[in-house]
Amino acid sequence: MKPVEWIGNALRYLDQTLLPTQEVFRETTDFREVAEAIKSLRIRGAPLIGISAAYGLCLGALEGTTRQNDFYPFLERVDSILRSTRPTAVNLFWALDRMKKIWQEAQKNATLPEETCSRLIEEATTIEREDEAMNRKIAELGASLIQDGDVILTHCNAGALACGAWGTALGAIYWAQLKEGKKIQVYADETRPLLQGARLTAYELTRNGIPTRVICDNMAAFMMQQGKINKIIVGADRIATNGDTANKIGTYSLAVLARYHNIPFYVAAPTSTIDFEIVEGSQIPIEERNAAEIKYWKEHQIVPEKAEVENPAFDITPNTLITAIITEQGILYPPFQEKILSIRRKIER
Amino acid sequence: MKPVEWIGNALRYLDQTLLPTQEVFRETTDFREVAEAIKSLRIRGAPLIGISAAYGLCLGALEGTTRQNDFYPFLERVDSILRSTRPTAVNLFWALDRMKKIWQEAQKNATLPEETCSRLIEEATTIEREDEAMNRKIAELGASLIQDGDVILTHCNAGALACGAWGTALGAIYWAQLKEGKKIQVYADETRPLLQGARLTAYELTRNGIPTRVICDNMAAFMMQQGKINKIIVGADRIATNGDTANKIGTYSLAVLARYHNIPFYVAAPTSTIDFEIVEGSQIPIEERNAAEIKYWKEHQIVPEKAEVENPAFDITPNTLITAIITEQGILYPPFQEKILSIRRKIER
Repeated sequence: MKPVEWIGNALRYLDQTLLPTQEVFRETTDFREVAEAIKSLRIRGAPLIGISAAYGLCLGALEGTTRQNDFYPFLERVDSILRSTRPTAVNLFWALDRMKKIWQEAQKNATLPEETCSRLIEEATTIEREDEAMNRKIAELGASLIQDGDVILTHCNAGALACGAWGTALGAIYWAQLKEGKKIQVYADETRPLLQGARLTAYELTRNGIPTRVICDNMAAFMMQQGKINKIIVGADRIATNGDTANKIGTYSLAVLARYHNIPFYVAAPTSTIDFEIVEGSQIPIEERNAAEIKYWKEHQIVPEKAEVENPAFDITPNTLITAIITEQGILYPPFQEKILSIRRKIER
Repeated sequence: MKPVEWIGNALRYLDQTLLPTQEVFRETTDFREVAEAIKSLRIRGAPLIGISAAYGLCLGALEGTTRQNDFYPFLERVDSILRSTRPTAVNLFWALDRMKKIWQEAQKNATLPEETCSRLIEEATTIEREDEAMNRKIAELGASLIQDGDVILTHCNAGALACGAWGTALGAIYWAQLKEGKKIQVYADETRPLLQGARLTAYELTRNGIPTRVICDNMAAFMMQQGKINKIIVGADRIATNGDTANKIGTYSLAVLARYHNIPFYVAAPTSTIDFEIVEGSQIPIEERNAAEIKYWKEHQIVPEKAEVENPAFDITPNTLITAIITEQGILYPPFQEKILSIRRKIER
């Protein structure tokens, strides 16, 4: 089951806001719908956002072919609409930058729009394939850290639904159990306010035969205190050059609790999640989402009118609380900075 | 606004499950409805449970007057039904024990049922009045720990809605702002799964003019990291003789996070919350509530069928993480055991 798929010049995607009770796929040829789907979390998860934005740009390019002289300026607008959807996920910018290189090069050479479209679709497909290969590698490397019988806590959803393939944090769990025959149990934080853990992680894990228990976010410390959890693995939305990691709100809380209870705390993410422009976590912008996500539950109001709400979507876990970062280039242990810089040199070479 | 009130041989109570959008008062003469209201959290909060159970026993006694010979055996059954509602809240047992002393004494003296009823109503009224006085004292003492400009985090609801009067944790905040003119801001954890923080704490605080921000439970660590919180005050459901404290699930998590961020962590509770029979926290039974509280949101299913759920209602915060316990007998600082034992001697004298 692929959460996004490019089929005959259209993008087919699973509406993740309807899980776990309904599996609804939508198909669109409109890049605006892709942007809206990313903004409203129907498509979510850092790697999947990157892939979808790349295909969104392809849809924009296909639409732009009817506006011969306006083709490249139109692409510019498509690019900026897609970029404005989610400010924290670096994969979004990373994927759109790769696409931009293609269309800017084509523009320089006055390439015909139809030809540019082909090249863009090729690049988006490459991004998707590379992502799948990276995921496999992260899953395999991550699995080497997992022992038979482990009980692993995870937060939000860093799985196949977020990535298009194995997933990162969940990929390691899948690999350990499905490829290596280790028996794993998972605690999934429900992950307020949007419940990606309860709705998405529990959905895909149980669908793949991994025994999963959902707990409220505020129960994780109690489970650790009782010795019920022996590893924590989470994904990442953006990693600074020093290893500081932005991920779904609540991740930092788990990292502090893990340190207090002497539980290893792993981050699993492709190197495309690393933002080499950013030295440390404090420079990462934190998206503040709509208060209604907390004030209302569907149609039910749960916070009184006069009360305020804060709704940061991410937090920053300092590198000092991270046991290791699992990337497709290897498992990085602290101190992270030199290893991340050597990956940068390797990529740029 | 009183959350429970004894009016002409009936109990009037606010259905707290309908807050913050509806203020519905119900009136009953049936002790079974009182038991059911406690079980389903329409009446909740340790002190209020104690008061309501005492009045519930009065309703049972009034009903029992029609069964002359069966009166005392019937009271025995009423008592056990009320006791079976919530296993963790010690105030429930404490209040019913006080009532039991009255009716057992009456039974010994073959007192007429009508006369026993009067004595029971008198005792329940005394419990309520004493609770109000204790709350005032806790509020006043707690306020002495609060400075002008403090931003205080609280969890669940330890307010007027839980106590019938000022409240404990929130009582201190009310006293500081309303009696002493200090300006206070409050962060209220929404407190999953039943959202007492979002629904009840935010409701009563804003109704009393205290600026309140609701956050999801997993955001508290991030607010602490950003230096936005300088005190934490919570209530308690049961306190062991060594100071270990059972309170709403998520409290332990906050205590660990407070320690990591060097934020004072206060527990506010009347001495009736102390269980002198219990030496340490590990002996306190933890109520496991229905999985449906997490699996469903009203009619919406949020956890897939195949996933399990754990739903402990409370956790235990070890005494080492508690800065001070605010009681009506004074503010206790660590080590707690000797101070708690001296309170026991004082009470028993």
